[in-house]
This record gives sequence, structure tokens and C-alpha cells, in this order.
Amino acid sequence: MKKKAIKIVTIGGGSSYTPELMEGFIKRYEELPIQEIWLVDIEEGREKLEIVGAMAQRMWDASPYDVKVHLTLDRREALPGADFVTTQFRVGLLDARIKDERIPFSHGMLGQETNGAGGMFKALRTIPVILNIVEDMKELCPNAWLINFTNPSGMVTQAVIKYGKWKKCIGLCNVPVGALIKEPEMFGVTERDLVHQFAGLNHFHWHKVTDAQGNDLTDQIIDKMYVEDSGTPANIHDVKFLKEQVKEMQLIPCGYHRYYYMQDEMLTHGLEEFNGIGTRGEQVKVTEAELLELYKDPNLNYKPEQLTKRGGTHYSDAACECINSIYNDKRTHMVVSTENNGAITELPYDSIVEISCIITGKGAMPLTWGKFKSAERGWVQSMKAMEECVIESAVTGNYGLILQAFLLNLQVKSGACAQELLDELLVAHKKYLPQFAKKIEELEATGVASKDAVVMDLMVNGH
Amino acid sequence: MKKKAIKIVTIGGGSSYTPELMEGFIKRYEELPIQEIWLVDIEEGREKLEIVGAMAQRMWDASPYDVKVHLTLDRREALPGADFVTTQFRVGLLDARIKDERIPFSHGMLGQETNGAGGMFKALRTIPVILNIVEDMKELCPNAWLINFTNPSGMVTQAVIKYGKWKKCIGLCNVPVGALIKEPEMFGVTERDLVHQFAGLNHFHWHKVTDAQGNDLTDQIIDKMYVEDSGTPANIHDVKFLKEQVKEMQLIPCGYHRYYYMQDEMLTHGLEEFNGIGTRGEQVKVTEAELLELYKDPNLNYKPEQLTKRGGTHYSDAACECINSIYNDKRTHMVVSTENNGAITELPYDSIVEISCIITGKGAMPLTWGKFKSAERGWVQSMKAMEECVIESAVTGNYGLILQAFLLNLQVKSGACAQELLDELLVAHKKYLPQFAKKIEELEATGVASKDAVVMDLMVNGH
Amino acid sequence: MKKKAIKIVTIGGGSSYTPELMEGFIKRYEELPIQEIWLVDIEEGREKLEIVGAMAQRMWDASPYDVKVHLTLDRREALPGADFVTTQFRVGLLDARIKDERIPFSHGMLGQETNGAGGMFKALRTIPVILNIVEDMKELCPNAWLINFTNPSGMVTQAVIKYGKWKKCIGLCNVPVGALIKEPEMFGVTERDLVHQFAGLNHFHWHKVTDAQGNDLTDQIIDKMYVEDSGTPANIHDVKFLKEQVKEMQLIPCGYHRYYYMQDEMLTHGLEEFNGIGTRGEQVKVTEAELLELYKDPNLNYKPEQLTKRGGTHYSDAACECINSIYNDKRTHMVVSTENNGAITELPYDSIVEISCIITGKGAMPLTWGKFKSAERGWVQSMKAMEECVIESAVTGNYGLILQAFLLNLQVKSGACAQELLDELLVAHKKYLPQFAKKIEELEATGVASKDAVVMDLMVNGH
Amino acid sequence: MKKKAIKIVTIGGGSSYTPELMEGFIKRYEELPIQEIWLVDIEEGREKLEIVGAMAQRMWDASPYDVKVHLTLDRREALPGADFVTTQFRVGLLDARIKDERIPFSHGMLGQETNGAGGMFKALRTIPVILNIVEDMKELCPNAWLINFTNPSGMVTQAVIKYGKWKKCIGLCNVPVGALIKEPEMFGVTERDLVHQFAGLNHFHWHKVTDAQGNDLTDQIIDKMYVEDSGTPANIHDVKFLKEQVKEMQLIPCGYHRYYYMQDEMLTHGLEEFNGIGTRGEQVKVTEAELLELYKDPNLNYKPEQLTKRGGTHYSDAACECINSIYNDKRTHMVVSTENNGAITELPYDSIVEISCIITGKGAMPLTWGKFKSAERGWVQSMKAMEECVIESAVTGNYGLILQAFLLNLQVKSGACAQELLDELLVAHKKYLPQFAKKIEELEATGVASKDAVVMDLMVNGH
Repeated sequence: MKKKAIKIVTIGGGSSYTPELMEGFIKRYEELPIQEIWLVDIEEGREKLEIVGAMAQRMWDASPYDVKVHLTLDRREALPGADFVTTQFRVGLLDARIKDERIPFSHGMLGQETNGAGGMFKALRTIPVILNIVEDMKELCPNAWLINFTNPSGMVTQAVIKYGKWKKCIGLCNVPVGALIKEPEMFGVTERDLVHQFAGLNHFHWHKVTDAQGNDLTDQIIDKMYVEDSGTPANIHDVKFLKEQVKEMQLIPCGYHRYYYMQDEMLTHGLEEFNGIGTRGEQVKVTEAELLELYKDPNLNYKPEQLTKRGGTHYSDAACECINSIYNDKRTHMVVSTENNGAITELPYDSIVEISCIITGKGAMPLTWGKFKSAERGWVQSMKAMEECVIESAVTGNYGLILQAFLLNLQVKSGACAQELLDELLVAHKKYLPQFAKKIEELEATGVASKDAVVMDLMVNGH
Repeated sequence: MKKKAIKIVTIGGGSSYTPELMEGFIKRYEELPIQEIWLVDIEEGREKLEIVGAMAQRMWDASPYDVKVHLTLDRREALPGADFVTTQFRVGLLDARIKDERIPFSHGMLGQETNGAGGMFKALRTIPVILNIVEDMKELCPNAWLINFTNPSGMVTQAVIKYGKWKKCIGLCNVPVGALIKEPEMFGVTERDLVHQFAGLNHFHWHKVTDAQGNDLTDQIIDKMYVEDSGTPANIHDVKFLKEQVKEMQLIPCGYHRYYYMQDEMLTHGLEEFNGIGTRGEQVKVTEAELLELYKDPNLNYKPEQLTKRGGTHYSDAACECINSIYNDKRTHMVVSTENNGAITELPYDSIVEISCIITGKGAMPLTWGKFKSAERGWVQSMKAMEECVIESAVTGNYGLILQAFLLNLQVKSGACAQELLDELLVAHKKYLPQFAKKIEELEATGVASKDAVVMDLMVNGH
Repeated sequence: MKKKAIKIVTIGGGSSYTPELMEGFIKRYEELPIQEIWLVDIEEGREKLEIVGAMAQRMWDASPYDVKVHLTLDRREALPGADFVTTQFRVGLLDARIKDERIPFSHGMLGQETNGAGGMFKALRTIPVILNIVEDMKELCPNAWLINFTNPSGMVTQAVIKYGKWKKCIGLCNVPVGALIKEPEMFGVTERDLVHQFAGLNHFHWHKVTDAQGNDLTDQIIDKMYVEDSGTPANIHDVKFLKEQVKEMQLIPCGYHRYYYMQDEMLTHGLEEFNGIGTRGEQVKVTEAELLELYKDPNLNYKPEQLTKRGGTHYSDAACECINSIYNDKRTHMVVSTENNGAITELPYDSIVEISCIITGKGAMPLTWGKFKSAERGWVQSMKAMEECVIESAVTGNYGLILQAFLLNLQVKSGACAQELLDELLVAHKKYLPQFAKKIEELEATGVASKDAVVMDLMVNGH
Repeated sequence: MKKKAIKIVTIGGGSSYTPELMEGFIKRYEELPIQEIWLVDIEEGREKLEIVGAMAQRMWDASPYDVKVHLTLDRREALPGADFVTTQFRVGLLDARIKDERIPFSHGMLGQETNGAGGMFKALRTIPVILNIVEDMKELCPNAWLINFTNPSGMVTQAVIKYGKWKKCIGLCNVPVGALIKEPEMFGVTERDLVHQFAGLNHFHWHKVTDAQGNDLTDQIIDKMYVEDSGTPANIHDVKFLKEQVKEMQLIPCGYHRYYYMQDEMLTHGLEEFNGIGTRGEQVKVTEAELLELYKDPNLNYKPEQLTKRGGTHYSDAACECINSIYNDKRTHMVVSTENNGAITELPYDSIVEISCIITGKGAMPLTWGKFKSAERGWVQSMKAMEECVIESAVTGNYGLILQAFLLNLQVKSGACAQELLDELLVAHKKYLPQFAKKIEELEATGVASKDAVVMDLMVNGH
């Protein structure tokens, strides 16, 4: 049976990661015959879209394949007939991220854009937008797959599936990819020589490993983590976990666990950056400007090396592989965010988990994980509860519920200080939080304002 | 890394299915470098073992491979250093099966050797023996895999894992293989073009199918079941299911569901055979004698066509493929009996289910199935409860518990008649039920005896 | 705080049980200050309503209390401002019950009006009507409690709570009351001297008993069941359970378990009645006519002894006690049908179970039961699944689903015969099954008709 | 039936709370005919035991009842024939508590003796001792009830039931009693006029309240909490919860939730006390010395008013009421620690929860609670996981596991600082932690020592 040629729509197409995505498609073209690609962005991102879009077209032009890259600021123009919609947009751009980071640090708390106070606010801003995208998809491309890699990827995916009722959605994360690359190197073998099994939540998963004969390697990898580079993503400060803890787990935590297990160290380091070279978002802003400068070069027609240094590397490749595996029913083993359905026994049946799956023509089929030991179970249950509060609050604008999430989120100090931070963030992100409009007005009336100088500056200068 | 050459031990090696097993190994030899095969049987099976063993050796001799087939009546001689132990033995031989069938029919109830009254008795006889085998394995080959295809395969596997505490055990069944062969033919495609997903219990599972693009084919297959040959195993009388029921399920039941969904028809047909040409066991006894005659031919060195006609065809091939997939970490999709661990949400976490798995170097990793709709859930929960009563009773000799199982088993009429049947079966199988010795003595003292004439005859003539 | 006087509305007020209800209210009047009682019935029941209503008023007039009994054929006249609505109506009157019994018996299957084929059809007829009542209540008495004792009480209650979304509903059953009266007598003590705990489903529950010091008495009661009258309700043929089974359970089954555990005997006995003195419904019809004759006596102003002989005795008293306990927050221990919420671990969280509760001002608070042993778990899970199919089918008119229920219901023989029975019942009850109108038409077009002579006769003569 | 007279054994009988216990027994004597009371303590508590024991005997002598109070330092002398054993002992006496508080504060973390770092260490010291007591009970009073009010009461009770396999154990807490007294006062009614329902863990539960008509009062109580005295136990600093959070919950948190929800404020206050008037334990030490002085007065024969001011007030009364309710099968509503069995759906089936129960002759029967909303669910699951790590570690001496508990416990800052605190506490409590002997030795070898000056001083002076 001849398969139809593929139409890809990328929301947030002006992202500096787009060249990685193009590279991924180009190298899979023989299996994945793409006909057209639409890069969608918003008015504020017009300039980036044009630069990145031209670069993307140059990459295809340099390839043996005849693929047209369309650019648009109107996603409804792009969506009709799409087979795969990928989402990599950032509501409020990097400036919003910088607020997500700087405001918590200015309160002496972690500013982390995926699962701390900042991550919760990223969810509050993103979820209403993605639910609107889903409504457009229902109308314009009702059979498309939504491949999400907008962070916080797990929460966004859960919103799409549970609130948007869009089942054909898979959430991606690049963190497991790092382990899948690094660990075989430790043993001088290839990925296929090991049996990996991951389970948990996005940016909060653990995994275990055996060799092809079923012999456990987890414990050896743990030992190696203390003598070798652990493969922590570039965007995470590399503090070693407490060894006795990891030996007790007999599971390998993910890089983001540092924000929970080693919070003291991560906070200290974060505050240093906050008071010094700038938060991660500020650093990324610089990198990104540099990347865009590079992309402007009309002779550049391949992904530049600099992009690989960013924390999000592998995301786009994971997306391409996922699309490929769905399109060709390849049954590849991937770690994605999908419906739990009992795969992790002690998490709610219908919530989204990040887990080892077989990616088939009908989507992700999770391998059954079962139960965690007590400590991991407690952590993951607590995180999932926090996520549920954030997601529902993002949809409903319920202030009490996001306050609950703040108190439950272990990156936020508990007490009145949590509420002060929450209120300041609400006011700072007013523009992107229509669901909280009334509450924000009340807060402003009582004088709540964003107090961090750099953030203030950003707001004044309208970045 | 060079892998060690493989030692296979087959308990019940005198089975007429052994040539299929040999054929399976021969055709996989390049991947699965077997060094030695041990066929083990008991004194009563000595003659069969010798015939079958010679035949097996001839098959290897006719192949390009140098493999020695060893025969022994002492499993402790065979087990040391085994990599894979396969179990296909029948406690009490076919005569016990014939009693399992004829005695229920003589009470006007279904005599079915895998999940009716007869199946429960097969479990009572088999479980103590396999637990003894496991004890020997702990001592003599503590790293071996136990690949069970002795029926009732699910209950026996559960006994091995839960009571024997032997985790490296996989239970096989040939029924899903039939569907995996038949259904692609319906659409003129290959197995790999469809995505199958099975869940349930051994001889009591359902499945659904999509094409490689994720489009559901289940409903079409159901329709085809009413116009085409449905692929029911040769040993099951082919009554059509009630179409409105199956359309409501939107799942494809397995052949053995007939004994529950279409009990009236199956009973009528079974009684006809009982009163006419003989029960399935009696028919098999004839077939088996014929097969053994064939096997005696010193020129026969390949699996004869006649073997394929038996109900158990594909079992041995499934076993070879399973062993191959473990040995080579092939990650083949197979439907096997393994630990649930939440894969089927509403069955006990630690019970054995039959489910679509990826077979890896560390064993079977089940794909998460989730929940059934109400009716299938009720059926499968009730069957699992029955299995638990049988297994525990097989281990403990608890009479009240096997009575509970009889009343709960829907193939047995409920009331005092269930207990009468139970008592007669206990007495009839006395020789193989040491755990019930005291109860059987009591029953005999009150005059309970096996009343079916043919069965009587069998006992007298010592078959 | 002075509480408001109480308004009671009884749907099906023309029932011959109404005098028991009146007696129950009269004896509790000091605690339960009823101001008005409305008896509601339908046109076909007008004559009964008038007889029973007059009798009810005489009972109050003979009491020291000034309570007015209103009669109406329009429930919307009665409902406004009601505090408690009790439901004891029978859709299709006793003639429908007689069909529920005779048609299955004519197919050689059990005709049992609460959980066999007949009981499933009673649910199909009743659920649409009670959901309409609930809609009226939402409008006219949104704070009222609905106390249901229309059978099948568990399924009807589940429909009200899950489909009608009416949380203030409690389902009653008289069966546990029988045990609570009988068992203390066995030990020469009072009910309060024993600690009972019940769990299961309506007409499918088990219980255990300790003395006030926590010593188990269950085993002693089981022994006594084999030497004494077991307290089986008058409407259930008293066959002894298999003793070894009950000893294994260490729980006391309810009377209705006979239809499952001792089906052979119950069927034999039922067929004798069917072919002889008439089914239970036919017998009740005679009794009821006699009762109504008695009630016509203008001098009769108390509940006649004859009423106590019926199977449903204690129902009305249970209803009065339940109302009393809610009104006065008495926290009485009662066994009622209410939301599970995890009280019985292995049944669905949101389904209705019959369980020991504390009846408080906010309704029934179930005592946690936990897990059953395997066999009881299997039975109760299978029954609940069947109930779910019936309830959903009653709401939606889904034919495939009620066929699933028939096959799953262990009182129905499985196979094509189940479907034949189903079809005949659908046609026979056509008048009361609007949700199945289209299917019934199709069936009639193919010649399906009710074949039992007596039933035919009933239909012709318009009973 | 005449009941046997009661023998009470109180382990930790030298506690200054013992007079409250005596008062509780005296006022219930007519229902609870106690014959003898044994107060057991250890050598280090001999003096206190003698003072308190004499005081206890004077209280009985001043009553109309003839009860003998026996004193012993050998619990095996006391236990034979006991009906109820109450446990209120403190391993390491108040000095250990002071270390539990001061050492964490010296690291800038909360020192809280029931569920922070200190509480975890109290569990590590207590659990081995209570398991020894249970072993003695198995031998000497196998039918006795163990009524535990040694903190952390929930963890200690879980150890007794799960590891000690002693089912007849109930854990008590005085915190709910405070709410049961305070809240009716808010409405000018009595406790019996309200319907309370509690669920959670010891010192980590929530509750909701209705009036006797089932109308919710929870929301009103929350409002009142912000205008009135909230009834926080005397030993907890009274910081108001964040109102928007509690309004969102629609549940009333317990006083100890402050250590989690308002950690910042509690830490600030705790550090003030640490640096000023001394921690709670130090304050209690003064109070206790004063109480003992009072008790020495040979004329004092009633519970002095001062005792009521302590945080633990009502504990002893709760114990008396619990014993009374068991002995007389009173079916009193009490909030106790008992086996979950599904009462709180999302906590492990076999763990200990603190929940509204009916106390009967066979022990505590929990009322089914069901599910929490997301946030409370996450909190309670995380706390239970932490408890499980602590309990198992207390039994096994597993260092990795107690480190896991420290990281999971939200009162402990995460990172290397958690491990430093852990190590210092291990060394400080060396004498009472035989299960960690080897690890402590290693730590001492690397120079770990207790650094807090006051604690040092305590150790030097051998308190």
C-alpha cells in the first residue's frame, strides 16, 4: 500500500532548535517522505521565524530532497491536512523564562523553568494556548498526531489529553536520550546491547538497565556515575547525588532530580548565577542571539555545532524518530509522555507518565513498570499531585489550587513566602494569564508588583 | 562477546510433540547454537521416550548441525547446567486426561482438560510435580529459564512463580499463535503489518488488532469470523459465538471462550462425542499411537504432517521462538503467561496473566493493557479467582478450597452435583494426588467410586 | 434547634406492604414527627391505592398522632417539599414479575425476580422510571432523601446515584435484617451483644460475626446453620449450602446465594413450582389479593399478621429505621446499598455495594471491609460486572450489552439459548421497555413471541 | 455474662501524664472495673516512677474504688495476664528529645519530635524497643490489647502491626480530641451534634464536619479559624494557615500541618526559641520537674491543673476511652491509628492510617474515607512513603533507607546538608541505636560528632 506523503506543521517554528528538527527529517527522508513543512510563529517572533525559516529551506535545498518550507503567522493557514503537528513554542518568549527564573531567585528560591515555580508558571501560560491549538486541530486536521516538546512537557501533554480530549498526543523529552547515549559508552557497547527501562514523570523519572542477558547493570552504572561524567544535560548544574541514596534506590535518577534531592547545592549555584553571569534563561538568550546571527549567514545550510551545546539537544531528533516510528510502525523503544493506564501502578490510571514505550502505528504502548519502592513512590506521587493542581488551575484560573501547587512543590519554600512569590509571578506574567485576570487585578490593587530589578528592567524595555 | 553454547532440558521429552520442538530448534540453529538436548521422561513413558528420542536424534542427524539428544528417566541427571528447561509433561499420561473428560461428561458436565473440571484436576496433579522440578532446578541449574507449556499453562506458571518462587519462568500457549497466523491472511498482509494486542488469562484471553497506521481492524475481523473459517484450534469444536455479543465487546475472544459463552452447544457436542466416537483425549490417544508408529520408521527424519493436525500445534514453535528471543534479546512480540504487575489493572498485581509482551534478554516485559469493559472484566476476574483457589488447593490439599473452585468454575453445574463430581474425580485420580490422600481415603470409606464404564475399564486394564 | 416536621412521599404507595411502613412510622413517631404522608401510585393501581390508603389512614387514626395520609396518582402533586421519598413500586405490577419468572422456567432456567433473568428485566423496566422520578425530585424537592426498596435494590440505587446523579439515595434490603434477628437468638443474646459486619452486593452479600469481646462466632453460626432453621427469607426455598464450602469461606452467605451456589437444587424446586402450584409471583398474587381483602375491612386498623409471612417483611421497618437514623443522626448500624468509595477494595470505587454502615445525618457512612478471599472476590466481581451491563443497558437500550449481561449472569444458561430467552423476555415486556422499542420491533418481525401458555393467558386477559 | 476484672499495664508508667490516665480510669470505673494497674519503667526512671506511682495510688485511694497500683522495673513481671498494655515510654528520656530538637535547629532545620528529623529519630529509637515488648506480650499476655501513645504514634503502631505481627494494637493521638472539643464550642453545641470525619496519618490528618442534618460546616469552621482561637495544641506555635489554601481544601488541617504548610514561619519561631528560651523539649523538662515536685506532695491526690497545659493533654483520656470502648463494645467514634484496609483509597492497603473509627469489642473499624483531592493526596502519599522508609530502617538498620527518608521528609533541607544532619543525629543517639552500631562507628571514625553546645553539655552531664 502506498502511503500518503507527509505534511508537518511546527508551532513555534521560529525556535533556534528548528535546524535540528530539519536535520532529523532530512536524515530520515528515505523512510519518512515529507512533502511540506509549515513553520508557524506569532507576530512577536516574526523576525526569528524569517531567519530560521530561510535557514531551514537552505538545509532542504542542500539535501537531495525537494521539500518546501512554508512560513506563516497564522496557524489556521498551516494546519489543514497536517499529519503531524509538533509544538515547541514558548509563550512570552525567553523574557518570560527569565522572569520565571529571576523572580524565584530574588525570593531566595529555585528558579527552574520546568518543574519549580517557573515551570509551574510556564504551564499556566502554555496550557491555555495549546488547548486552543487543539481546538483548531479538531477542526482542521482531525487525524493528526500532536508531538509536543514544549515544556513542561508532561503537564502540557496531560492537559492536551485530559482537558483537550485529544488522544493522539505524545510528549517528548530529551533527557532519557542522554542516558541512552551515555550508558552504552560506559560499557563499550551500543544502545541495542542494553535493556533500558524508564518510568516516572517528565523531568522526574528513573531507570534501570540490564545487559542483553538480563544481568543487572544499574548498580555498576551508579558506581561509574561517581568516577565518570554522568551525562547530565548541559543546562543542569552537575552536582553529584548522595551516593548512599542512589545505591539504596538501585535506580538511576534523572538530571532534574537534583533540584529535589540536592536542592541546597542547586539553590546555592543558582543564586550565584543569578547574582553573577545571569540565570540559565539569560545565558540562553545570549546563545540564541548568537545562533540567530549564525543562521543569518546565507551560506549556512547545516545545523551548526553550537546548537548541540544547548540543554535541549536531542529533543528534535527524538521528535523525528517518534514521527518516523508512528508513520512506519517501527515499534522503536522510546521514553515518552503518554497515558499511564496502570503501567505505573501507584499513579492515577488516567494521568500522563513518562515511560518506556514501544512506538507503533497506533501510538505509544507503554511497557508495564509496576511498583516503585517506598521513597520513589512517595516522590513521584507528590509530584503528580502537584502537576494535577497546576494543570487544573491553568485551565480554570483557580487561585487556591495554584497556591496548593506552590506549597506542594518542593522547590518552593513553604509559608507566606510561597504566596508572596506566587503573587509576584502572577503580576509579572499578567499579559499571558488571562484566566487569572481578576485575581491579578486584585493583587495589583493591593500593591503587588514584580520587585526584581532585572525583571523590572525587562518589563520596562518591553522585551 | 561470545555467548556460551546452549543446553536444553525437556521434561516430558517422550511427548509426540517433541519432533515439532526439534524442528523449531533446527530452523533457528544459526541464531540459537544448541549444544545438547536432554529429553527426560518417567518410567511409564520409557517406551515413548525411546521412540521419540531416536526420531529426534535422526532429525538432528539429518540437519547440518552436530547436536546430541540425550535420553534419561532421571531428571537430576539432565538438569545440571541447563540454560532452558521446557516442561511438556502430563502427569498420569493420556489416561488421566481421559478421566478428566469422561467423568464430568458422565455427570452431564463439560469435560475439558484445560479450564473445566478436568483442567482443574490437571492442575492438581501437575503443580506438586512442577514444584518438585523447581526445587531440583534451584539446586542444579539456578540460572536456567523454565519455559512451561504443560497445561493448564497459566495456573502451572503461577504456581512456579508464586509458590515455587522461581521468577525466571514463562508460560506458553499456542492459541494466540493461531490468530497471529490467520488474521493477516484475512487481509492479505503479513503478521508484521498488523498491531495485535492480547490480554487475559491462559485459554481465556481477548485481543484487538489495528493496521500499521493505527486504524482498528477488530470490527472487520469480527465480521469476517462469521463468513470465514475463524482459525479455531483443531481441538475445539467450532461453534460460532453470538455475533451481537462479540460486536458489543469489540474484542476477539479466544477459542476456549466457547466453553463459557456457548456452553450449551459445547456440552451437547461433547456429550455426543462422549457417547459416540469418544472424547478428545480418546481421539488423541489414537492419533498419538499412530504418530508413534510413524516415529518408529528409522527412515523418518522430519516432522510428519499428521502432527500439525493436533490441537497443540505451534506450542513447540512458540517455545523455540521464546527461547531464541531471550537468548538473543530479540524483543519479539509474543503472547505469554507472565507476572501481571499492573498490566491488566483489575487483576491482582502479583498474579500471572497471558498478555502481549516484548521478550527480552531479561524475560517477558508486558505491554500495558489497562482496563477491560465491564463484562470481560467480570469474566476474567472470576476466572482468576477460580485459578487461585485451584492453585492454593493443589499446594495445600485444602478440600474446601477446591470445592470453592468447582462452584466458581462456570463449566461445572453448581449444587450438590458439583461436589459429587469433585469427589469422584478425587478418587479416580488418587494415585497422583498425594496432597489429598486423607480426604480420598474418607471418600472411599463412604463408597465414592468412579462410575463411568470406560474410565473403569481404563483403570482395570492399567492404561 | 427545633426541627421541621417531616413530609414523606411513598411512590408505589398502593403496595400491600404500606401498612408495615405505617406501623414503622407510628412506633417511631416520638422521635420522627411526621406531618404528612403522600401515597402515590399509577392509574392501573388506583383501586389498590384507595384500599391501602384508607387502611393507612385508619392506622394513624387509631394512633395518638394526627397525621394525614394523602393519596394521588400524580407524583408531581406529592413531591414538593418532601423530606423523604420512598420507592416501592413495581413497573408492570405482579404480572410482569410472573413473566420474569415463568418465561425463564419455560426455557429450563431459573426465574428469579431479583438477580436472575427476571431480575435483570425488572431492572430494565424500573431504571428508566426511577430516573424520571429523580428528575422530578431535582425540580420539586431538591433536598429530599430517596430511600429505595424497589428491587433489584442495588442496581436501582446505582442507577439513581451514577446516572441520575442523585447522591442522597440509600438502597434498602430486608435480607440482612433477618440475620440480625436470627443470629442473636442462636446464642440467647440480643443483637447489640454481637458485632456484625456485612459486605457484598444487594442479595449477594456475606457477613461475619463476633461477640462483644471480639471473639469470632462465624464458625459456630455456620455449624448451627446445619442443625437449626437458618433464617432464610420466606420467599427463598431453603436448601442447605454445601457445608465444606461455607466452612472454607468462614463467612455466612445470604439466602440468595442459593441461586448461585446451589443452582441445580433451586432450579429443580423452581421447575416443580412452575409446573405445579405456580411460581413465587403467582403465589404472591394470591396472598396479595387476600391481603387486599383484609385491608378492605373498615375495622382493621393495624398491620395484619399475614403480611409478616411475605418475603419482603422487614423492608418497611428498615426504611423507617433508616429515615429515623438520618433525621436524628442516630448513627445506627444498618446494612444498606451505598457508594463503595473503596470500602470493598476490589470492587469499582464508584459502584454501589451493600455494606454495614453507620447511618448519620449526612447519610450512610460505610465501615471499611477490605478484601475478600479469592472465591468470594471472584463471585462478587463477576456479579458487579453483570450489574453494570444491565444498568447501562437499561439507560441506553444497548442490546449487545444486555446480551453480555445474560451470558455473564450465572443463573442463565450460556449459548444461543440465552439469547432466545432474552429475546422472548424483550417481546413479553415490550410495553415497559421503550428504550428497546426498535429492537423489539425487529424481533417481532422475525416471529419472536412469548411462548409460555400461562404468560400468554395473562397477556390476553390483561392482568 | 460477668466479665473478668481488668488488668492494665502501663509501660513508661513514670511519665508525668500518668495522673491523667488514672483520672480517666477513675471516672470510668463503673463501666470499666479495673482490678490492678502495673506501672513499668526502667532503671533510669526509677525515681520518677516512685513519685508518680505513689501519686497514682493516692488518687485511687481518694476514690471509692479499691485498686492497687503496682510498680516495677521489670516489664516481664507486670505483663502476665494483662488485658490492656498501654505504652507511653520515651527511649532516652527528655534528653533524647532535646537532642532531636536542638541538633536540627543547629543545622538551620526544624527540630520537631514527631514528624521531622527528630521524629524520625524518635522512631528509630522506639521501634526496636516496642518490638521487644511485643515479643514479651506474645509469651506473657497473648490476648492483650496494646494501646500505644508513644510518638510518633502512627509509625510505632505500624511497626507493631506489620513487623511485630501484633494485630491487637491501636495507636492514639490527642490532636483530633482538641478539634472535637473546640469545634462544637464554635457553634454552641455539643460534640454529638456534629458529624466529624477524619483521615490521614498521625499528626498529618485532615477532617470535615457537618451538622446533624448533614449540612457542611467545614467552610464555616475555616472562616472561624481566622477570627477565633483555632484550638491548636499548646505545644505548637500558632501560625495561621494561608487562608486561600484552606478554603481550596475544604478540609481542616491538623495543627502539625504547620510544620509543612508554614515551614518558614515555624522554622523562624523554632530558631528563636532554640536561641532563646530553649526548644519545646527544654521547656517541657522544666514543666516536668515542676510537676514532679507537685506530685511529691503527699496530700495531692488529684490531677493538678498544670498538667492540662501540656501539649499531650487528652492523650491519656483518649486511651481510657478507647479501652472502655473495646471492653464494653461501645462503638464510640474515635480517631485512631489502625490498619487502612482500603479506607483511604490511595494509601497502601496494609499501612497504618489515622482515621475516624468505630471502636468495638473487636477493635477499631474504620469508616471509609475514599479519595482525597490532588494536593492532600500528594502530601499524604509522600508522608506515608517517608514513614515506610523510617520504619523499615528502624528494624533493619539500613542507612541508605533512612537517608532516603531524610531527603523525602519535607522538614529536612535536601542536599548534602541532610546527610550531615543525619550523621550527627546518629552519633548523638548512639546509645539507643544498636541497629546502626556499625555505621555509627564508621561515622565516628571519620570525625562526625554532635556539635550543638547545649547538646554537648547534656551529654557531658549525663542527663
